[in-house]
Amino acid sequence: MAIDLGSLMERSLAIYTSDHKSVVSMNLFVALLCACIVIGHLLEENRWMNESITALAIGLGTGVVILLTTKGKSSHLMVFSEDLFFIYLLPPIIFNAGFQVKKKQFFRNFMTIMLFGAVGTLISFVIISLGAIHFFKKMNIGTLKIGDYLAIGAIFAATDSVCTLQVLNQDETPLLYSLVFGEGVVNDATSVVLFNAIQSFDLSHINSSIALQFVGNFLYLFIASTMLGVLAGLLSAFIIKKLYMGRHSTDREVALMILMAYLSYMLAELFYLSGILTVFFCGIVMSHYTWHNVTESSRVTTKHAFATLSFVAEIFIFLYVGMDALDIEKWRVVSDSPGKSLGVSAILLGLVLVGRAAFVFPLSFLSNLTKKSPYEKIGLKQQVTIWWAGLMRGAVSMALAYNQFTSSGHTKLHGNAIMITSTITVVLFSTVVFGLMTKPLVRILLPSSKTLSRMESSEPCTPKSFIVPLLGNRHDSEANHKNENVLRPTSLRMLLSTPSHTVHHYWRKFDDSFMRPVFGGRGFVPIVPGSPLEQTVNQWQ
Amino acid sequence: MAIDLGSLMERSLAIYTSDHKSVVSMNLFVALLCACIVIGHLLEENRWMNESITALAIGLGTGVVILLTTKGKSSHLMVFSEDLFFIYLLPPIIFNAGFQVKKKQFFRNFMTIMLFGAVGTLISFVIISLGAIHFFKKMNIGTLKIGDYLAIGAIFAATDSVCTLQVLNQDETPLLYSLVFGEGVVNDATSVVLFNAIQSFDLSHINSSIALQFVGNFLYLFIASTMLGVLAGLLSAFIIKKLYMGRHSTDREVALMILMAYLSYMLAELFYLSGILTVFFCGIVMSHYTWHNVTESSRVTTKHAFATLSFVAEIFIFLYVGMDALDIEKWRVVSDSPGKSLGVSAILLGLVLVGRAAFVFPLSFLSNLTKKSPYEKIGLKQQVTIWWAGLMRGAVSMALAYNQFTSSGHTKLHGNAIMITSTITVVLFSTVVFGLMTKPLVRILLPSSKTLSRMESSEPCTPKSFIVPLLGNRHDSEANHKNENVLRPTSLRMLLSTPSHTVHHYWRKFDDSFMRPVFGGRGFVPIVPGSPLEQTVNQWQ
Repeated sequence: MAIDLGSLMERSLAIYTSDHKSVVSMNLFVALLCACIVIGHLLEENRWMNESITALAIGLGTGVVILLTTKGKSSHLMVFSEDLFFIYLLPPIIFNAGFQVKKKQFFRNFMTIMLFGAVGTLISFVIISLGAIHFFKKMNIGTLKIGDYLAIGAIFAATDSVCTLQVLNQDETPLLYSLVFGEGVVNDATSVVLFNAIQSFDLSHINSSIALQFVGNFLYLFIASTMLGVLAGLLSAFIIKKLYMGRHSTDREVALMILMAYLSYMLAELFYLSGILTVFFCGIVMSHYTWHNVTESSRVTTKHAFATLSFVAEIFIFLYVGMDALDIEKWRVVSDSPGKSLGVSAILLGLVLVGRAAFVFPLSFLSNLTKKSPYEKIGLKQQVTIWWAGLMRGAVSMALAYNQFTSSGHTKLHGNAIMITSTITVVLFSTVVFGLMTKPLVRILLPSSKTLSRMESSEPCTPKSFIVPLLGNRHDSEANHKNENVLRPTSLRMLLSTPSHTVHHYWRKFDDSFMRPVFGGRGFVPIVPGSPLEQTVNQWQ
Repeated sequence: MAIDLGSLMERSLAIYTSDHKSVVSMNLFVALLCACIVIGHLLEENRWMNESITALAIGLGTGVVILLTTKGKSSHLMVFSEDLFFIYLLPPIIFNAGFQVKKKQFFRNFMTIMLFGAVGTLISFVIISLGAIHFFKKMNIGTLKIGDYLAIGAIFAATDSVCTLQVLNQDETPLLYSLVFGEGVVNDATSVVLFNAIQSFDLSHINSSIALQFVGNFLYLFIASTMLGVLAGLLSAFIIKKLYMGRHSTDREVALMILMAYLSYMLAELFYLSGILTVFFCGIVMSHYTWHNVTESSRVTTKHAFATLSFVAEIFIFLYVGMDALDIEKWRVVSDSPGKSLGVSAILLGLVLVGRAAFVFPLSFLSNLTKKSPYEKIGLKQQVTIWWAGLMRGAVSMALAYNQFTSSGHTKLHGNAIMITSTITVVLFSTVVFGLMTKPLVRILLPSSKTLSRMESSEPCTPKSFIVPLLGNRHDSEANHKNENVLRPTSLRMLLSTPSHTVHHYWRKFDDSFMRPVFGGRGFVPIVPGSPLEQTVNQWQ
């Protein structure tokens, strides 16, 4: 009964084909997605639950029912396909993250975010890889090569901070929120880039030249992907501003934004770059320029449509992981040595805990050294929160593990089977157990702030995504923007106080005097519908 | 280089697979979609062109370039898959059509629309089938069975009224617009249902019992599909109204609406019903009830997101058809008898012209007999416009032809190859030649109305889809609603004058007193954000 969604596309048309089974699975899957949304809504106020755990639980429950119905033959509706994940589910999530991020906070903490996201992930990767080599070599769990150990490092360095982000409040703890959120995105990109680098390099005999090449490759991927995303975003802003699409059709603007975003992702894949980074920066640039060039209805539509896509993709993933966890095939292979599989899972969980602690606290210390004002420093309780936020492992880990340990077709190998089941165990355990503890923990660590007030707020106009509880009110950030201009008298005064603010200040000057007149943005595009474009544009230029 | 999008899903991930070619095609295809949107925008004011012809032309151009690049080996990026068409492209188009239709006009002219859409399509089907049997039997074009002839009838009875709808003005000629639009949708459903009925019945020896069974099956499909769509729509309205999703998240509402709509389509496929009819009526019910139960931003988002999806799907189809038309494989088989293929195409075109004339004028006469007031009657010029509007053949014909003449794997058969190339010829000729003549023709036939004024209007907030230039202003229809209540003193008086209005009146009474309190709808759901749900609901009930 297991059906690959890819071939499902070809087979699931009941009118024409006789493959009624795939239509049944598809119906069940869509109905389950609806159920997740409704149940997630009903559990919104619950103290422990959140949407990802709900979807996981529903997925597990469905798996049990299917397992009983088919008398132990199968537990899932579709097999997990990492292509489906990386081509269709991940891009909307990451694009939406870039699109909805509060850019000011993000760029103000840019260095710290990069420190955590890139350097931290590398540290975590090294520790987990070394730990895996140290422990697993003694355990006799089958033939794992050096590449496999490094892949394990990359797989378990990929965090999933959704649970924590659902609990943190962007307005009350902006620094903490932007750090956890930004780290999450950069971590996703870093671990995938790392994983690809490991797969494409011959790592059987490492020497300094190969290591250097590895680092160079990594940096090239990082920078080129970012540039491509920025260029795609700017191009979309330029086209929409020049052509003034909204005059004829809101739909064209929306369609163009979606297609350009997807094109940036596909272009990155074309040039063997990191699509995740590209689409993230494309989202940031689009929200800074393109979004202000379109009509009012396009703005509302894109904001909510992207958030909805991302929301559905996330539920899809958790439902998928939940259903896939019970796949009887994988467990059968390791059933002769359940203790060993459990041991491996426990060791991996321990390594995750240690690997994360090994960079969060030292790097926070480093970051605090460069900051002057106390409110910009990261307190100990906040450090613990950051550490906790990155303990969950999610769909990225699953997808990478599947790729490494099943792609070559030898799933039946003992070592590979153990690694797959251990990954499932770690993902389920960390998401459910750590996830359930997050709300109470954050309440204890950050008691002064009403961290959970957002849960009870009844503001229907504010969309809320899983991963990005939404950049929310742009008016609000506009207000900040104005206040700051008042507070900041000269750039010289600022140079003396906080250098990072000066960079931000010069960027804004450059943005105002060069970028915005060309690419549009807030205040540089006629917002009133029907006003002739040419006049207004000439007036501004 | 031809790649099926279905398997593309499995193969196109550059990071993991070596199939770089499919990433290239996918990039090119997305870039072409963007180009179509931009060029379509630039040609908006053009006297002759419209978006479908633009997409067709770009598709043909790309086909030529690929043909030259690959030195005549291939002309398209992907092979036409009717599953892709029926599962992913058609549902959003039809759903959007139902969602954006002006319901009042649609239901007021319901009988006439059904007359044209169902009875008219059947007449057209019979004439084309009989004509095909009469002419093709003499032409020696290979072995065609009785089922093939009937399939040809169904294939060429499927119209594509996009071009005409782009030119007609919904506000100036509401009767004509609703007739052409409504007929188009019902025609789509009728021809697909017919086609499926033909394929599933053994038609080698027809007798009265089989014919009766055929009619019964047809009616069952029609009624059951409609009921399923209505039920799915009502369920979505009920869930969203009861749970008041908007309190927590706009995204959940939007996601639930999209998923429920798709679920209705898949359920119809599950029960072997017509997904097209189901999703159409689901769209109508959703726009009447569900749409009014969601937050303001959800309303804007769904309205534009559905229109955008439909818009992109339509461009996709025309681009696809344009590229596929040059597929060298199909033309090679018929290259030994180009005259015969041309003859078949000409005969089919003639049959299309006659088959349509044979029902538009008689049925208009019939419809006029039942109407009292002159402004409700269909004038001769309007009849000619209706006739013209249905002459174009589009993607539905292509998809059905591919299914009938290539699915069994014997494309190389002479008769099948000729039917495929003739279908392509008829689709291209009718879309391009008839399409180009539509704007001038409508201008001649309906000169008093400023039929083209919409083209020059600069109202950026109004989205405009390909197929449905948008239901536009709901405020407007609300105003009409009120006027009518004033003009209509008693139901007795109306019973004497126009019975169809009375049905409408009683429906409204039923709607107001029973349906709306349960399922929501305009005025029955708190619109002000943040107001407590319970109070308001109790107040209304």
